[in-house]
Amino acid sequence: MSGWVAIAGLGPGDEALWTGEVSAALAEATDVLGYATYTARIPARPGLRVHASDNREELARARHALALAAGGKRAVIVSSGDPGVFAMAAAVFEVVAENPDWLALDIRVLPGITAMLAAAARAGAPLGHDFCAINLSDNLKPWDLIERRLRLAAQADFAMALYNPRSAARPAGLGRALDVLREECEPERLIVFAAAVTAPQEKITTVTLAAASPDMADMRTVILVGNKSTRQVGKFVYTPRRAG
Amino acid sequence: MSGWVAIAGLGPGDEALWTGEVSAALAEATDVLGYATYTARIPARPGLRVHASDNREELARARHALALAAGGKRAVIVSSGDPGVFAMAAAVFEVVAENPDWLALDIRVLPGITAMLAAAARAGAPLGHDFCAINLSDNLKPWDLIERRLRLAAQADFAMALYNPRSAARPAGLGRALDVLREECEPERLIVFAAAVTAPQEKITTVTLAAASPDMADMRTVILVGNKSTRQVGKFVYTPRRAG
Repeated sequence: MSGWVAIAGLGPGDEALWTGEVSAALAEATDVLGYATYTARIPARPGLRVHASDNREELARARHALALAAGGKRAVIVSSGDPGVFAMAAAVFEVVAENPDWLALDIRVLPGITAMLAAAARAGAPLGHDFCAINLSDNLKPWDLIERRLRLAAQADFAMALYNPRSAARPAGLGRALDVLREECEPERLIVFAAAVTAPQEKITTVTLAAASPDMADMRTVILVGNKSTRQVGKFVYTPRRAG
Repeated sequence: MSGWVAIAGLGPGDEALWTGEVSAALAEATDVLGYATYTARIPARPGLRVHASDNREELARARHALALAAGGKRAVIVSSGDPGVFAMAAAVFEVVAENPDWLALDIRVLPGITAMLAAAARAGAPLGHDFCAINLSDNLKPWDLIERRLRLAAQADFAMALYNPRSAARPAGLGRALDVLREECEPERLIVFAAAVTAPQEKITTVTLAAASPDMADMRTVILVGNKSTRQVGKFVYTPRRAG
């Protein structure tokens, strides 16, 4: 039996947002690898080995999965959201590029519901027109680049999804990001703070840019910024399809 | 029994990319509404009425679904991809804003695998860093705005997903879009044309910007444009997580 690696997206949390393809891969797997928070979501079963590791160990995890597949195992690397969006898929291909012998393996990416789509669905349709996704973590890029992208995205009138807006190690970035948005956008711009989407603690909060503050976000929040046409009806936030 | 409306994303085509939540809503539905191409994907069953309509009838379809729910029906509006990304969710909230009485209804958006995520997964991880999504159709916005967004997105060094790149009614836009990219990006920039993803006719073609031409796309294509760091390893295209 030949091995394979699948990099699978588990969505925001609730198993109801897994795709059938991801469920099937997990049912066939011999090994599951991932950040402990994500592997904890996988039901245990006889014959399934779980390899939990720390959040910062993406490259080591990718090498481990490829080595398992080379040894005939069926390895699933689990990511939250979609594995191709600020998650494990890029790390796997970075490792393959270091050692192209791995290209002989069966490597598949199984898409998932990324955080911004889950959050947007809960809020209404704030990403209903052109939009962008920006990771506010400066672990892997300089802060200046983040500010530049925010500014250009606002000038392009994109709606925006801001991933990883705040962590204990990066308390100041979100305040600076909101300052950039205040320089480029009107104070009435709508902003959705979507925390713990699909979990029991889920909380969706919509405010204007003028009222937005960094303490409205934590590690489990994705922030959606409307474009200049985004509006509210009842509890829903939506961006009209038409723009001018 | 009280009615509801769910706006559900069917993903790119293959039922293996439906979420469990979407399958459950379809199992409970009394009525399914959508563009005929999408309603044709829903298995018939006794008691399920299917209302197929034309692609340009989004607002009429939304009103129909809301009226059904007001009458106690359980109506699912099906979209391809994700309903919040260039699809039906915004149209529903536009209709609700016209008649806020509809806010008394149970309205839910059920996310799905949008085309860019399905295409990116097949290609590798081209959206592995900050990115944007731009609809190249000028049915609902002026062409100048599309060009402006493309130019600013390139200057921000976003990877890009270009939806609806070409149709019989809009043969010229994609050539103009590629011209804008050629003014802003190096000729070696990687571009993925992903056609009919998950269908038997699926075709993933990776070329440089210099070699890209409009006839590589049709109505069933989504185009992924790498950022300046995007590279290839074997058949895979990926954007490294690190930038700057």
